[in-house]
Amino acid sequence: MEQFLKDIGEHEFISRFLRKNLPASGIVQGIGDDCAVLDFSENEYLLVTSDMMVEDRHFTRSWFSMSQIGRKLVEINVSDIHSMGGKASYGFLSVAFPGTMRAEESNSFFTGLYESADRHDLQLAGGDTTENDKIIVNLTLLGHVEKKRLQLRSGCQDGDLLCVTGTLGKSAAGLALFLAGQSGNKSGYLEPQARSYSDALTISLYATSMIDISDGLASEACHLARHSGLQFNIRQNDIPLSDETKKSASLLKADPIEWALSGGEDYELLFTLPPQKLDTLKKQFSDFSCIGRASKGVAKVCLETDSGQREISKGYEHFKTQAKK
Amino acid sequence: MEQFLKDIGEHEFISRFLRKNLPASGIVQGIGDDCAVLDFSENEYLLVTSDMMVEDRHFTRSWFSMSQIGRKLVEINVSDIHSMGGKASYGFLSVAFPGTMRAEESNSFFTGLYESADRHDLQLAGGDTTENDKIIVNLTLLGHVEKKRLQLRSGCQDGDLLCVTGTLGKSAAGLALFLAGQSGNKSGYLEPQARSYSDALTISLYATSMIDISDGLASEACHLARHSGLQFNIRQNDIPLSDETKKSASLLKADPIEWALSGGEDYELLFTLPPQKLDTLKKQFSDFSCIGRASKGVAKVCLETDSGQREISKGYEHFKTQAKK
Repeated sequence: MEQFLKDIGEHEFISRFLRKNLPASGIVQGIGDDCAVLDFSENEYLLVTSDMMVEDRHFTRSWFSMSQIGRKLVEINVSDIHSMGGKASYGFLSVAFPGTMRAEESNSFFTGLYESADRHDLQLAGGDTTENDKIIVNLTLLGHVEKKRLQLRSGCQDGDLLCVTGTLGKSAAGLALFLAGQSGNKSGYLEPQARSYSDALTISLYATSMIDISDGLASEACHLARHSGLQFNIRQNDIPLSDETKKSASLLKADPIEWALSGGEDYELLFTLPPQKLDTLKKQFSDFSCIGRASKGVAKVCLETDSGQREISKGYEHFKTQAKK
Repeated sequence: MEQFLKDIGEHEFISRFLRKNLPASGIVQGIGDDCAVLDFSENEYLLVTSDMMVEDRHFTRSWFSMSQIGRKLVEINVSDIHSMGGKASYGFLSVAFPGTMRAEESNSFFTGLYESADRHDLQLAGGDTTENDKIIVNLTLLGHVEKKRLQLRSGCQDGDLLCVTGTLGKSAAGLALFLAGQSGNKSGYLEPQARSYSDALTISLYATSMIDISDGLASEACHLARHSGLQFNIRQNDIPLSDETKKSASLLKADPIEWALSGGEDYELLFTLPPQKLDTLKKQFSDFSCIGRASKGVAKVCLETDSGQREISKGYEHFKTQAKK
């Protein structure tokens, strides 16, 4: 039977085709983490990440301003570097814009892009420009991390706490408000912000594994569980939600926990922490919640609710599902 | 008056928006050469280049096989690294494919991509996948070059010879055959090949500046002239054309010199050479032609023909002109 990409799904697609050449010399970590990790110098790894945003798939121009598109492109990429404990340093941008775009709009895109780049002390060092009827932007970031500070998806130990920065479901809340045609706080969706390098660096002193939340808590926790071969139990009541998110959920009669679990695009940091490091980290950085714990068992993620425990599935996957606008 | 990108053109677009943050620490050469040059270690520079290919702009699926698209993406990027005298080492690929694409076609794309990657001893180390109705692929390459071997667009001296590898107009010939609905040798268009690292390395021992021919001889020679502040005179009769290209031109009643000057996508290396180095280079690498000379004067490029001399204008520019398919 003929197979199409929509039948295969993104993860199978990646594992079928992109892993072919690995492992190779100099590649410490290839495809399969937030960034590629390259061994370039004695004390530091070079980190490289790349994210593409396509109009009407990752954003729609009726909802996003051009400067929001520019900012989001930087933030989602910077978040990948920070999630490895690294510092983003240089950006390489490919843009395809329509020839009929007003120069002012293009200007606005770069204003947003540079706002975020400046905020993260990131230099734009190269790129490519072409023309297309829809906007397509791709950013590749180079970063660096001290070898001993590198955070991978693997590394979690039996008994470690599962922790997450900030609050979750903000982005999904904004999207749900748009889809329902309701007003409310949509900034989590329109203007996601990567956690600062300073936050990531502090966490990386004590964490055993880390990932950023781009695809939803359930999916990201599954990555950590699979890479460490442990079972994660998440306590539903401890998942951090903002008052704004709860308010939007109440307005829309939606479940904010569902947004947190599978909405994605919150760009908070999910990490595992030995229990004895909890107090020390809390003294240096406190904007995080402990939401669960790792234990020996089959690699999976379970949600503990007032009514019992259930295994939770993966989040959003490309090719298999419909676009989120 | 309102301005659109199609009024501004690519070069103005780049200079308006992308140069903002330069120069910055660690960036030896930012936007404005084939690659960005970063100062990462004592003896070597890190080179980074990025090229995006969009369906129906850079290729059409009725003409290109999926494996040809994969190969071309690698070759055009590798050519940028080689044109700086560098060795390509790691690739980061972003792909947007339609969900309705057959898995076999996607497989074929990666087969072509890895064929070229293997040929150039290049490892694919990361990337991003998403879905789009049209195919969009972006490759970012990292490479490295010994500091003393770095070739820039600037560096040419008064009296240097202008030289070019191989033959020109091959790609434009293939495209012209397609557009005319004629059969013939279209491989220069469908399967361009970057010059090998070995060729580029040998040339870089003696050259004073170098660039690869992606936009046509006229445009690339203008870049070298502008960056060195010299006038280049090109002898039309010395522009190298293959017999195949002449045959196609004859069939189509077209001017093959026009293809060489403004067709582009030949991915040969254009370089400047002190006259006293000519014999030495010829002994080590001979597949090149001397087509002109640099002299003091206004930075421009002139073509010397049997009937006189004329200034030649720039080649293809994005936004301002129609797509080449």
